[in-house]
Amino acid sequence: MEDVSDGHVGSEPDEEIMRATYRALCEHGYANLTIKRIAEEYGKSTAAIHYHYDTKDELLVAFLDYVLDRFADAVHDVDTIDPEQRLQLLLDKLLVPQEEHHDLLIALVEMQSQAPYKETFRQQFRQNDEYIRYMLRTVVSHGIEEGVFADADAERVARSLMTIVHGARTRAVVLDDPSALDTARRTADQYVAAVLLERE
Amino acid sequence: MEDVSDGHVGSEPDEEIMRATYRALCEHGYANLTIKRIAEEYGKSTAAIHYHYDTKDELLVAFLDYVLDRFADAVHDVDTIDPEQRLQLLLDKLLVPQEEHHDLLIALVEMQSQAPYKETFRQQFRQNDEYIRYMLRTVVSHGIEEGVFADADAERVARSLMTIVHGARTRAVVLDDPSALDTARRTADQYVAAVLLERE
Repeated sequence: MEDVSDGHVGSEPDEEIMRATYRALCEHGYANLTIKRIAEEYGKSTAAIHYHYDTKDELLVAFLDYVLDRFADAVHDVDTIDPEQRLQLLLDKLLVPQEEHHDLLIALVEMQSQAPYKETFRQQFRQNDEYIRYMLRTVVSHGIEEGVFADADAERVARSLMTIVHGARTRAVVLDDPSALDTARRTADQYVAAVLLERE
Repeated sequence: MEDVSDGHVGSEPDEEIMRATYRALCEHGYANLTIKRIAEEYGKSTAAIHYHYDTKDELLVAFLDYVLDRFADAVHDVDTIDPEQRLQLLLDKLLVPQEEHHDLLIALVEMQSQAPYKETFRQQFRQNDEYIRYMLRTVVSHGIEEGVFADADAERVARSLMTIVHGARTRAVVLDDPSALDTARRTADQYVAAVLLERE
């Protein structure tokens, strides 16, 4: 569907600006992020960023979409079609050890806390959540059809697993507790074993 | 242990200021909270507040402690000693329907997002978490001793349940999704059934 010959697809966020935003967010956090600081990481003028994004919030919404895209790419690259393995892999990716991403998690939790005040943030967080639930639901439904998983409400399972994922990230950041993601990974395994594998 | 005859216990937060802080937080959110706005709710001067609390952050840390106290009081008032009932009740209290407390939850999520930047917030959030995990651990251990619950690592169970609680609150606020607390309540029930009751 995508016309690659177009060269530049207007709706795609500019990869380099997104990478610069990532670095600036990790270094300065959300509250102290400015277009100027992103431009410094980008190595170009603030005008070069404003050419693509009118406001900082617009850029950050694009960044949230970019984070989702990277996640989706990482998951799609996996070549197993076994439902149990794919579900485990999704949970691994959703609950990566925080050392790698702790500064990004801090910034994302800050942005999340602004969702009640910023409609565009809330909409993008909802969109990301819907997409990840769709991925979870798909693998759960597939496993049920294959007879690998017990019969269950795939959407409810997806929501339960996302609750565990969000709890882990919040606890990792707020309590500065690196073990929160391991705890959540174990909790998710116990949940999956009980609800989908009917063993404990 | 507490000397009630003392009349005024210096370390206790002043109840009226705490109630005023609650109202001001619900109305203005964390970012727009000022001592002046709390004073308006309190019906006294800002000096009357500064007499008790040097800074807004100091007052807010006291407020987090107050929220924990109210929670502990609500739990202690319950007169059942049946472990399964007490655990259900703790989970009910931790996952109350958000209509009642949604504005407070929004403010708490904002304050949580500042924990990486404010040592005193982080310490108080840790203290609250430790205390609630202690309550959960106690009832789980009691149930194991009584033979009502299966043998399990009570601290791990407490951490898993708190992960579900934090995930629910984050999702309720960030996605503005009132069903997030119901989802979490069901997830917690499934978790308890699988790990402590060994039935699904």
